[in-house]
Amino acid sequence: MRRFDSTSVDFQSELTALLAFETSQDPQVDVRVAAILADVKARGDAAVIEYTNQFDGTSAQSMADLELSQAELKAAFERLPSDQAAALQAAAARVRSFHEKQKMTSWSYQDEDGTLLGQQVTALDRVGIYVPGGKATYPSSVLMNAIPAHVAGVQEIIMVVPTPRGERNDMVLGAAYVAGVSRAFTIGGAQAVGALAFGTQTIPQVDKITGPGNAYVAAAKRAVFGIVGIDMVAGPSEILVIADGNTPADWVAMDLFSQAEHDEIAQSILLCTDAAYLAEVEASIAKLLPSQPRKDIISASLANRGALILVKDLTEACEISNYIAPEHLELSVANPDALLPQIRHAGAIFMGQFTSESLGDYCAGPNHVLPTARSARFSSPLGVYDFQKRSSIIKVSEAGAQKLGKIASVLAHGEGLTAHANAAELRLKA
Amino acid sequence: MRRFDSTSVDFQSELTALLAFETSQDPQVDVRVAAILADVKARGDAAVIEYTNQFDGTSAQSMADLELSQAELKAAFERLPSDQAAALQAAAARVRSFHEKQKMTSWSYQDEDGTLLGQQVTALDRVGIYVPGGKATYPSSVLMNAIPAHVAGVQEIIMVVPTPRGERNDMVLGAAYVAGVSRAFTIGGAQAVGALAFGTQTIPQVDKITGPGNAYVAAAKRAVFGIVGIDMVAGPSEILVIADGNTPADWVAMDLFSQAEHDEIAQSILLCTDAAYLAEVEASIAKLLPSQPRKDIISASLANRGALILVKDLTEACEISNYIAPEHLELSVANPDALLPQIRHAGAIFMGQFTSESLGDYCAGPNHVLPTARSARFSSPLGVYDFQKRSSIIKVSEAGAQKLGKIASVLAHGEGLTAHANAAELRLKA
Repeated sequence: MRRFDSTSVDFQSELTALLAFETSQDPQVDVRVAAILADVKARGDAAVIEYTNQFDGTSAQSMADLELSQAELKAAFERLPSDQAAALQAAAARVRSFHEKQKMTSWSYQDEDGTLLGQQVTALDRVGIYVPGGKATYPSSVLMNAIPAHVAGVQEIIMVVPTPRGERNDMVLGAAYVAGVSRAFTIGGAQAVGALAFGTQTIPQVDKITGPGNAYVAAAKRAVFGIVGIDMVAGPSEILVIADGNTPADWVAMDLFSQAEHDEIAQSILLCTDAAYLAEVEASIAKLLPSQPRKDIISASLANRGALILVKDLTEACEISNYIAPEHLELSVANPDALLPQIRHAGAIFMGQFTSESLGDYCAGPNHVLPTARSARFSSPLGVYDFQKRSSIIKVSEAGAQKLGKIASVLAHGEGLTAHANAAELRLKA
Repeated sequence: MRRFDSTSVDFQSELTALLAFETSQDPQVDVRVAAILADVKARGDAAVIEYTNQFDGTSAQSMADLELSQAELKAAFERLPSDQAAALQAAAARVRSFHEKQKMTSWSYQDEDGTLLGQQVTALDRVGIYVPGGKATYPSSVLMNAIPAHVAGVQEIIMVVPTPRGERNDMVLGAAYVAGVSRAFTIGGAQAVGALAFGTQTIPQVDKITGPGNAYVAAAKRAVFGIVGIDMVAGPSEILVIADGNTPADWVAMDLFSQAEHDEIAQSILLCTDAAYLAEVEASIAKLLPSQPRKDIISASLANRGALILVKDLTEACEISNYIAPEHLELSVANPDALLPQIRHAGAIFMGQFTSESLGDYCAGPNHVLPTARSARFSSPLGVYDFQKRSSIIKVSEAGAQKLGKIASVLAHGEGLTAHANAAELRLKA
């Protein structure tokens, strides 16, 4: 694992190189995705069935073979071991409770002329949730995507989840049951994104598509952006830990692992003011790694993209963190409240030594869909607000039309838009 | 202008055809834009200067030739006729006052175990605002983009505005002065978007780019989405008027014009319960059109994409409106409050006969950057919230770690993520 020192003259360039990650879009993927989307748009169900059979090794004859009934979701939940069923329900209840506090409401006010101004907040009608299938199955992602939509008041939540060779995951389907998914289809890839974006004979067009997927899914979401809304195009997961040396080193080592185990290109970085503590964490890593089932992935991730960085003080640590704008930030320090005001950009901030990132991933309440790859500079965790939207409301009084009409007239003429000016002028009293 | 009747058997297909608009991205534009972006990323200022001289017919030697000082913005404002200066200031004050009500604030709460949960709201550090130059110059757009960023607390607002053949527009520069733009560059096109997205030796990298532009600008914004945030990719402007026949027909005709005059592919649609009133508006259109300076554009727009639609009742009008999800919706009826709860999707809602859309475009207060092409189904007017973002906050107490750790452990093992489970388990008391 690399070791850096913030006082090194090369530090900024080392840091830039460490963060560099080419999210290069493969033009061949874009071309292939464009063809699939066009075909799904043109042929609907028939295209979806063909691609699903081709890519997922299934043998569906009709869309009915690719839809899961509510009874099937319920049955999957009921087949779960009781500890898993209880954990899903407990996590769902906490996630729901947190997200209810995000709900936006309409507002308005009257100005001095009696003109009413405000915004009316409404839910999206129908959303699609993409859930990856295959090697990585994440029931927690079902909760984190569906519950905010449900809390927002979305009437119809459509889940798509590919089931390669027909393999269904009871925890994923059970999570869909717990989260209140309306309809579920066992389809994936660009064909599923196309079906949700354009609608088919069987699958209704949605207004927004959220949820993670592979390169084809990401390219398809980018391509349909505008026809429907999308959430962020997710990059590899990242954690940044700021430590003052008070947290047991094993805990911090395991927190770094829990990001690294996602993916060989995941990124785990530790910033600390104490060189001896960095050495201690490194020793913990060496000690704990061999017993990890995913040790090969963890080890590759830490070697490729991990770093232990010695910093001058905690203020410098916060500055470096703001540059990185990490998806997950742990303030594993004695007094995290003192650092919080210095943090400007982070997806989620885990404060104090008891707040392992994994608690937030599953059940603390906040969403685990977070901005990656420095995009916390400009974007937010997935939330209820992503499933609501605003309409401006303007109700100009007759008195207001006199005052506003004169201003609008001057500006519209200044822009050469005479009809705009005339429309305002017609409302002026003679 | 086409006439439709909602009781016609073909009505839904006629409506679909009316709304159909191929926002087909020209692949050649994408290829050209990709090359410009790569060049700006690689060569920075030098590339920006070359493209600007090439496309805008200028002869800049250095970036200094392409930057406008605060003194130049102020001088432009001071050169304006007094009515224009006053109108800009009055509009800016109203827009600022409305947008201040949109500002989000941080929130948090403690659960029963003393665990703190919430979201910290912060402003983006630096944003770029694209302002079109050339044939259409819109100072009002400068206000509508820069003021929300300013209210959000963005520290640095960088405006780019191309000045073909060196032609500068005092109203645009004056609006930048009034709105509090920090720096301004006379560059445009994909090269300006690239400079803002990647940063150059002179232009700092921004966190988000907003503002309208031509096909090259739109393609460039789509391409850099993820590296920086972007606002919507805007389509042609639209208005839908729902009328009950109580508004003077000339007023409604002029409101339809004020959308149609933007562009030959802009869309103006009137829904009314009264066939005689539709005929009256049509007569007003014929009467008022000849004196409009932009009559050729208006006439083409109304012929190509306009429609007068007879509906059964106002409830049906609202249903049709929800399907269209118009950018601008006028409820030009005696009792607009009765209809408001039935409106689910619209960018901005103009209520009552005194609320011409043009008042909202310039000075009522709400933003005129609105979702087009049915995207009001899932998106909102530009606002302060687009220049703020949230970080989740989680501070788990020792007691909370015991309860949450068990739930997280079960779910993490269920997903095969052992390090996640172990990180939670390490915080459990023996």
